[in-house]
Amino acid sequence: MTGRPAGTPITGTTRLYAVLGDPIAQVQAPTLMNPVFARLQIDAVVVPVHARPQNLEHVVRGLQRVENLDGMFITVPHKVAVRRLADRCGPTVDIVGSANVLRREADGSWLAENFDGSGFVSGLVGAGHDPRGRRAALVGAGGAGSAIAAALLAAGVDRLAVYDCDTAKLGALVARLEARWPGRVCALDEPRLRDVDIAVNATPLGMHGGDPFPFPLDSLPPGSVVADIVMKPRETRLLRAAAALGHPVHHGIHMLEGQLNSYRVFFDLH
Amino acid sequence: MTGRPAGTPITGTTRLYAVLGDPIAQVQAPTLMNPVFARLQIDAVVVPVHARPQNLEHVVRGLQRVENLDGMFITVPHKVAVRRLADRCGPTVDIVGSANVLRREADGSWLAENFDGSGFVSGLVGAGHDPRGRRAALVGAGGAGSAIAAALLAAGVDRLAVYDCDTAKLGALVARLEARWPGRVCALDEPRLRDVDIAVNATPLGMHGGDPFPFPLDSLPPGSVVADIVMKPRETRLLRAAAALGHPVHHGIHMLEGQLNSYRVFFDLH
Repeated sequence: MTGRPAGTPITGTTRLYAVLGDPIAQVQAPTLMNPVFARLQIDAVVVPVHARPQNLEHVVRGLQRVENLDGMFITVPHKVAVRRLADRCGPTVDIVGSANVLRREADGSWLAENFDGSGFVSGLVGAGHDPRGRRAALVGAGGAGSAIAAALLAAGVDRLAVYDCDTAKLGALVARLEARWPGRVCALDEPRLRDVDIAVNATPLGMHGGDPFPFPLDSLPPGSVVADIVMKPRETRLLRAAAALGHPVHHGIHMLEGQLNSYRVFFDLH
Repeated sequence: MTGRPAGTPITGTTRLYAVLGDPIAQVQAPTLMNPVFARLQIDAVVVPVHARPQNLEHVVRGLQRVENLDGMFITVPHKVAVRRLADRCGPTVDIVGSANVLRREADGSWLAENFDGSGFVSGLVGAGHDPRGRRAALVGAGGAGSAIAAALLAAGVDRLAVYDCDTAKLGALVARLEARWPGRVCALDEPRLRDVDIAVNATPLGMHGGDPFPFPLDSLPPGSVVADIVMKPRETRLLRAAAALGHPVHHGIHMLEGQLNSYRVFFDLH
């Protein structure tokens, strides 16, 4: 964790990015993005903006009128509500139902996008596990799971199986995915993942030591990749057990690292 | 000019201050205040916020709802308009007619104050020229001049003479000052300063090399202090000529340094 180096002080010419959340203390965007700006010698800074849900509209409407503010990162609990404060939503936002970033366009309008999923896929590709043409299975149809499901399909997985214990939520997600990518998605009625090349935990299970596995490992084919989105601990019980069984494992932190690349492209930072 | 040292990165816990102006590139508050925060080990940062006049209300109303934003510095052209966006105005704001800082109060309301003048007086005192009981004269009844006039009276000058070529503006200011500090203020009908201990240029004259003097030096008593609010150049023609005549001179930069102390007190930074 490093600060802006002494060579890049904040001055009147510095461009702004805000990360909006409630609470705010835990947000990682300043810590992750500011060193990127410094390394690229971009005179810009990400600052935390603590907005309560009842104030989100006022805060976003105000920030959208700040001429030197180029973008907003959006985190819990604003990812769904922020959509209607954008002028346009990217394709992933419509499928996932939430946004995690807003960008000021050249014409002054605001575009919402969601990089939770593309960050995951970018990390997967970077680790040598390109999902194109592979069979994937995913447990968890919440915000992160929805985003990863859409990103895996967009990245060209051959088939995607999804499980969530909330069958209504699962059915709704599969219907949205099916409408966009017909014939490649199916819902599972139990979290047993078979005939897959890549198995993904997109639930919070694993954050706490006593959590059960999100899916059993004994149904997975030998050599299939086991991926987790849980970042803390880095080595979840699931990943430790999978590694012990000889599976290649993929850590949660790669999703965040992958998002940095997505943000660089989205915000045209170079 | 230094940045935030590496030991104090911006994180999710960092408190925010904004400086609002249009244009914004020239603002000094980030460059001046951020090293103060760093030196005091305060996890806070001042960022530039470029707000157009037609957007000022939206921007301020939005920032007032940012829970981790504690204050705003206000500069040209928003110092007058921002008053009505505060819940309360300090006494100097009412006299001067403008504000240059907003603070979130303990009850969540917003207080506007103006430290342009108190910064000047604080700088004057720090340089050994305490105005208490002295005779002062001032040229320029604009925003800075009004603020300095009020601050000099509040600091206990015995008499204050004010000149401005805009007689309507001059008359209005003297009337407001007279209402608050009766019997100590008079308007001058020409910029000849006599019988004074401290003579102040509160006009922009001196920023450009070819500018005329704001007031002639030949009417000043020997030993009277000549003060300028022009910061660039540091040595104005007026100050150079006054020094050559043996007058103690007081530079514009002291007003800004004095304001830093005022801000530290106002924002309870220690």
